[in-house]
Amino acid sequence: MSSFYQNLRIIVVGYGNIGKYAADAVIAAPDLDLTGIVWTSKTKEKPSEINGIPVIDDVQAIWPVDAALLCVPSRNVEEEAVKYLELGIPTVDSFDIHSDIYGLKTRLTPVCQKNQVSSIISAGWDPGLDSVIRAMMQLSVPRGVTYTNFGPGMSMGHTVAAKKIEGVKDAMSVTIPLGTGIHRRMVYVETKPGADFAAIQAKIKADPYFVHDETHVIKTDNLDSLMDVSHGTLIERRGVSGITANQRLEFNMKINNPALTAQIMAACARAVIRQKPSAYTMIEIPPVDFVLGTPEEIIKSLV
Amino acid sequence: MSSFYQNLRIIVVGYGNIGKYAADAVIAAPDLDLTGIVWTSKTKEKPSEINGIPVIDDVQAIWPVDAALLCVPSRNVEEEAVKYLELGIPTVDSFDIHSDIYGLKTRLTPVCQKNQVSSIISAGWDPGLDSVIRAMMQLSVPRGVTYTNFGPGMSMGHTVAAKKIEGVKDAMSVTIPLGTGIHRRMVYVETKPGADFAAIQAKIKADPYFVHDETHVIKTDNLDSLMDVSHGTLIERRGVSGITANQRLEFNMKINNPALTAQIMAACARAVIRQKPSAYTMIEIPPVDFVLGTPEEIIKSLV
Repeated sequence: MSSFYQNLRIIVVGYGNIGKYAADAVIAAPDLDLTGIVWTSKTKEKPSEINGIPVIDDVQAIWPVDAALLCVPSRNVEEEAVKYLELGIPTVDSFDIHSDIYGLKTRLTPVCQKNQVSSIISAGWDPGLDSVIRAMMQLSVPRGVTYTNFGPGMSMGHTVAAKKIEGVKDAMSVTIPLGTGIHRRMVYVETKPGADFAAIQAKIKADPYFVHDETHVIKTDNLDSLMDVSHGTLIERRGVSGITANQRLEFNMKINNPALTAQIMAACARAVIRQKPSAYTMIEIPPVDFVLGTPEEIIKSLV
Repeated sequence: MSSFYQNLRIIVVGYGNIGKYAADAVIAAPDLDLTGIVWTSKTKEKPSEINGIPVIDDVQAIWPVDAALLCVPSRNVEEEAVKYLELGIPTVDSFDIHSDIYGLKTRLTPVCQKNQVSSIISAGWDPGLDSVIRAMMQLSVPRGVTYTNFGPGMSMGHTVAAKKIEGVKDAMSVTIPLGTGIHRRMVYVETKPGADFAAIQAKIKADPYFVHDETHVIKTDNLDSLMDVSHGTLIERRGVSGITANQRLEFNMKINNPALTAQIMAACARAVIRQKPSAYTMIEIPPVDFVLGTPEEIIKSLV
């Protein structure tokens, strides 16, 4: 479907927070073409195109397709992945429920093998980029503890949990790193008219998402003015190589969250078509496969 | 030669700066056994064993062997690699002449294919670990500049160059990072009796290894007391994901240099036996292959 010299034909499935940035990343990549955006919203009306890119319900309309970037919520990833894999289209997703990543891999692998295509799951910055960093730290310093510190930045999972609390009109939960993988939660809420703020505070602090962390709940009248997609991680490991202690490694980033997630997904489109049929996490892919260029160019410039 | 449940039988070839630490790393790894040390020194007398490990001239004496860690100078790597690959033994080396890494790969690949074994070349922290980090940064932030800042730490290449200067009895060159990939060279020298220190200073500063960098030459009477194998890198990249600027990534480590090199080589022994016959740099290997454990264990704990 694609030769080395021909751009890959990519579709973006879903056009929310990540999908918009994924479209940007595909368009910006010299070796990828964005051939369509698949509309998944049930609430917003489908436009016929976005910046000249056709917005479609049915992928057949823009056939052939080399890979699909599934920019849908984690809970919808599996259903969408199966759908595209069964059409023979490799998929990339950013499934981020850490406890079920291996499960998703084992469920998608037979679908990949039956349809002779591959899937890269949990592509993004954590899981994804950070997972590769943790693996490289682990092999370099096999004894020791790795701490992944998130933020400062908005946590989607905690934000959704706070929004579900009775009396909350809108909310945003910001993760603050306190070191050694311990985090503070700063929860900004707009309340519904007549709601009891003290009760909302108590309910958020008792919620399973917050109960184990230091949590502060702050009332605001203009949540929109606080919204910000900047985020980051600091991954730290110190320990022993062989029998030599005091080996110290850290990876630190300060980033626009959806822009980085989407860029990494676009890089995975390049890699997914090069693997033999199976479902993979990013640590199972040779890094060279993600990067623009020939192996010779990449080795000469990066090794 | 080895099953999943049986430890890999590893030999360390060369017992100098890296070889000693490689032996430590293999012994410390639960899934690797050190079955022999191949003596390569032409000047030091061969012991019959080191800490209970047989020291040998001929690998046949301890057959079978699953992989050889070639802890020899870069200039000797190719000859040693060919020798072991032709015996059907996978090899790992830390060849660090950046300008010839792709060349070495292309020369060893047919040897690997003919003998149906693999080789991982240029395994260490730079090239090696740092190469993987640079590749991951490149795919995450495709527009921008990556700076690799080395040190503070002793540079082997610059130390050897300084030692060759007329009138120098012994020398050590320490690399000091000045940011954006620019480095200062601090060269500590012991002079020969009657040598002209001013002339030595001038010659070192004019040497091709030093002429482009800020270089300070310092006389010392006890070079041995300054010797230290601590080192580090700071890899920085800022740039654009998709069309979003201000993405900032950095990788920072402070390490014992030979201990880290040797540990990474030991991890590559695990990976080299899992690849189809060819010569690889570390960016061409799935990170999961380097790490102790089953893919399921590794994905569940690190992704």
